[in-house]
Amino acid sequence: MPAYDYQLLLKHLLHQGVSWAPEQEIVYRDQVRYCYRDFYQRVLRLGSALRSLGVVPGTRVGVLEWDSHRYLEMYFGIPGIGAVMHTANPGLAFEDLLYTICHAGDEIIIAHADFAPLVERLRPALHQVRKFVLINDGPFRPAYAWVDAYYEDLLEEAAPLAELPDLDEDSLATLSYTTGTTGRPKGVYFTQRQITLQTLSDCVALSALGSYGGVNKHDVYMPLTPMFHGHAWGMPYVATMLGIKQVFPGKYEVPILLRLIAREKVTFSHCVPTILHKILASPAAQETDFNHCRIIIGGAALSKSLAGEAAQRGIQVYGGYGLSETCPVLTIANLKPFMEAWESEEQLDWLVKPGFTLPLVYLKVIDASGQEVPQDGQAVGEVVVRTPWCTPSYYQEEATAEELWRGGWLHTGDLAAIDQYGYIRLVDRLKDVIKSGGEWIVSQDVERLLAQHEDVQEAAVIGVPDPEWGERPLAIVVLRQEAVGRLNDAQLKEHLGRYVMRGELAAWAVPQGYVYVDEIPKTGVGKYNKRLLRSRYAGV
Amino acid sequence: MPAYDYQLLLKHLLHQGVSWAPEQEIVYRDQVRYCYRDFYQRVLRLGSALRSLGVVPGTRVGVLEWDSHRYLEMYFGIPGIGAVMHTANPGLAFEDLLYTICHAGDEIIIAHADFAPLVERLRPALHQVRKFVLINDGPFRPAYAWVDAYYEDLLEEAAPLAELPDLDEDSLATLSYTTGTTGRPKGVYFTQRQITLQTLSDCVALSALGSYGGVNKHDVYMPLTPMFHGHAWGMPYVATMLGIKQVFPGKYEVPILLRLIAREKVTFSHCVPTILHKILASPAAQETDFNHCRIIIGGAALSKSLAGEAAQRGIQVYGGYGLSETCPVLTIANLKPFMEAWESEEQLDWLVKPGFTLPLVYLKVIDASGQEVPQDGQAVGEVVVRTPWCTPSYYQEEATAEELWRGGWLHTGDLAAIDQYGYIRLVDRLKDVIKSGGEWIVSQDVERLLAQHEDVQEAAVIGVPDPEWGERPLAIVVLRQEAVGRLNDAQLKEHLGRYVMRGELAAWAVPQGYVYVDEIPKTGVGKYNKRLLRSRYAGV
Repeated sequence: MPAYDYQLLLKHLLHQGVSWAPEQEIVYRDQVRYCYRDFYQRVLRLGSALRSLGVVPGTRVGVLEWDSHRYLEMYFGIPGIGAVMHTANPGLAFEDLLYTICHAGDEIIIAHADFAPLVERLRPALHQVRKFVLINDGPFRPAYAWVDAYYEDLLEEAAPLAELPDLDEDSLATLSYTTGTTGRPKGVYFTQRQITLQTLSDCVALSALGSYGGVNKHDVYMPLTPMFHGHAWGMPYVATMLGIKQVFPGKYEVPILLRLIAREKVTFSHCVPTILHKILASPAAQETDFNHCRIIIGGAALSKSLAGEAAQRGIQVYGGYGLSETCPVLTIANLKPFMEAWESEEQLDWLVKPGFTLPLVYLKVIDASGQEVPQDGQAVGEVVVRTPWCTPSYYQEEATAEELWRGGWLHTGDLAAIDQYGYIRLVDRLKDVIKSGGEWIVSQDVERLLAQHEDVQEAAVIGVPDPEWGERPLAIVVLRQEAVGRLNDAQLKEHLGRYVMRGELAAWAVPQGYVYVDEIPKTGVGKYNKRLLRSRYAGV
Repeated sequence: MPAYDYQLLLKHLLHQGVSWAPEQEIVYRDQVRYCYRDFYQRVLRLGSALRSLGVVPGTRVGVLEWDSHRYLEMYFGIPGIGAVMHTANPGLAFEDLLYTICHAGDEIIIAHADFAPLVERLRPALHQVRKFVLINDGPFRPAYAWVDAYYEDLLEEAAPLAELPDLDEDSLATLSYTTGTTGRPKGVYFTQRQITLQTLSDCVALSALGSYGGVNKHDVYMPLTPMFHGHAWGMPYVATMLGIKQVFPGKYEVPILLRLIAREKVTFSHCVPTILHKILASPAAQETDFNHCRIIIGGAALSKSLAGEAAQRGIQVYGGYGLSETCPVLTIANLKPFMEAWESEEQLDWLVKPGFTLPLVYLKVIDASGQEVPQDGQAVGEVVVRTPWCTPSYYQEEATAEELWRGGWLHTGDLAAIDQYGYIRLVDRLKDVIKSGGEWIVSQDVERLLAQHEDVQEAAVIGVPDPEWGERPLAIVVLRQEAVGRLNDAQLKEHLGRYVMRGELAAWAVPQGYVYVDEIPKTGVGKYNKRLLRSRYAGV
């Protein structure tokens, strides 16, 4: 057919942003400031440079980089020539990181100089890597024998492509690894089509349906979820399509984050509660103008108290939910129009939820028999979804699809309740639920109530084998400094007992055992590492 | 693969709106008011009823209906079971309408009772139609021997489908015919995928990038471009996805339109300038609260004076552009952020333009040699586009693709200039340009300037053959009543001469001949019928 065969490609999102806002700024820390027109030229240079390194369609290119304009260039430039961007996670344990790079089959590694020592340690085992490219901030080029090229030199020397090529929309675009709490990292992979559709749908949800007036062309965006993690929740793709100002903070250092938010007038971001907490806890935050910025919180439950603290500083937070397996966004805590007429306290109850599905997303909460649970906000089941942007299986492990996609729905492994308005409330990971005497104990419920004790800084609850009950809960507790040595098991049991009395907690959910520690080990994205906790304290 | 094969289908847009806003209202005139939940049930009943009439995937179903909740049901219900909705245009000349129904191969006709006399006249020639379904407002069922079923009875008797089936996203969904000014109507056809993508992109452009704060979940929508014409510019699909209140006015009658706008608090619509003019010219408009509604104007140039009149009544208008061939929206006059800081008079210069491309749309203005013209706002060329939602050819005339898609770009046949910000300004239809002495005369330029004479109500300009110059312009003029017999050719030439003196019009563009008429014939969408004018006055 002579008609143009229009494929859904990331370059089309880029084209929109660049043609709409060629003069719009992209900022990297205190170091780089350029406009979309220059950004696009650098993407074209990157495509050309990668080809000169032997990158062909399908080649996996591993990236180890902080959040930067260069990462944004790679978001478009690597898939732009049909190659696959593996967003490697430098926060993984060394063996896991090594495993992912080998498993991905990366042939090129592009790494920030900060990760040079890490790459040096990885290198002897990376037999399939043909070229190492080093990224450096500023003019100094750190000399390592194994460096084949410097990112900036490559771009400078490359003749820019005339344009990015047309590709099949089902071409693989990105590859990343879940930082799951069990087993080896597993690869999730997404095509050009999938990310394009996620971007469009996400944008509709953020803007037309959005809370706090919605995201729009006037916003200034800065990621606070790393770009190596689930495409920074896909937001850099949205921001680029909209041609809005983007600010990249490099390595997350609170003083720099605060300075950039204030100076560049950031109005939109997203992060896990831990990052927000760190920002708010910084003394400098008291002096910072947060521009009434909106921040979507995901990765862990958003508490009303954290939302309240944020609101006091002029930050408008709302929940979101997604998984590495789902590219990642599934739901956003967008208030429905009638909710926006509610009192703000009641609104907050919904704003802190993971929220409502984006367009094109189907979400069900099902019980063990596969039946949907009642939409009463109480009944708990597993979240299963269908979207146009789910991973079809784990990478190079097609057999996992059977389990992941039981019944034609992607099983998230997350337990949730769903209310009468269709909003979900996450209660736990399916595998972290404690099965005790035929009942489920939702570990996160117990954790949340323990944390409400004024002397408790944080608490994780796991199941330990029990001959009589199957499993019994064990609490691993970090006390506030002033309470160490003062608080004991009995006081915590008494604290939880009050919730039992009020009917807010089942009696069998009160842990019998308590362990006091200085710190609870966490995964790369700040979740409790329950795999490690179970191996340490439950012997499983 | 066990992973769900997610196809881009219209039912997914419907699912989003219904699950987000099950209680949201849909209103039809003074007659019907129901919620999205009921709407969805009726779509499921319609799908079931159509099957009982023998409709199978691929069956063409012709619809002759005013703008109504039923049309919206058909927008989803007919393609929802894999059938093709042919949005027949009752405004076509009888022979053209007959031609389109036969050419489409409609096997079912669903017609409003107002069109029963028309159907009765068509019927003897509609050999391929197997069933006639009549729509009636209110309980009275008009009795015609040829009616096989009544729409409301069909729905009442049908057992609703459990859900709409999965389909291939490349399934044909809709078919309509261009009301071109030359030759027979030509069929344009769109798949489930194409309309879904147009809806998502359109929504991003309307909301995140939109003028006047953008369209969002709080809006109330009413079409003012008929639903048989280019899916009412695709807006009912956008509105349904967003779950916003929708108001359907039936046959366009100004008093009813005004009443609905005021009573239902309509905030978003779209129409051709003629409709807006009719609304504003109505005495009742002076008393109507227009809720600061935003109206996108397309189909013909939006003048600053009309925009000003609208603004005085509290209506915020902005331009848009598209073609039947492009599903239809290509551009919207969205102001860029820096323009929103301009003085309102300067903003207006851009708001009345057809505007800037939606996401995923590529648009070029090219000269006869295929080169892009300079982006200087002056140089004129043909608009060519690529989108994921263009018709691949005219229906059942695959050979037309060669011409339509020369060089892999859809040729719109529209002449435009493009400015430094990427906004287009339409100047004429390529085929309406008058070629005179090796120069182009843009008929719409002359028409616009003639219309600025206080005694001229409207004016059309066509080329008539001339032995010396090839063509020369002829003006067909409608005078204001009070000027009839008073104004003559010399005065109009003098009027245009002033623009020639100022350099705003070429001397050779001043028509030598003038014809005074009571009315200029128009096409179904209110454009001058230049085909008829040429045959009448130019003998071609």
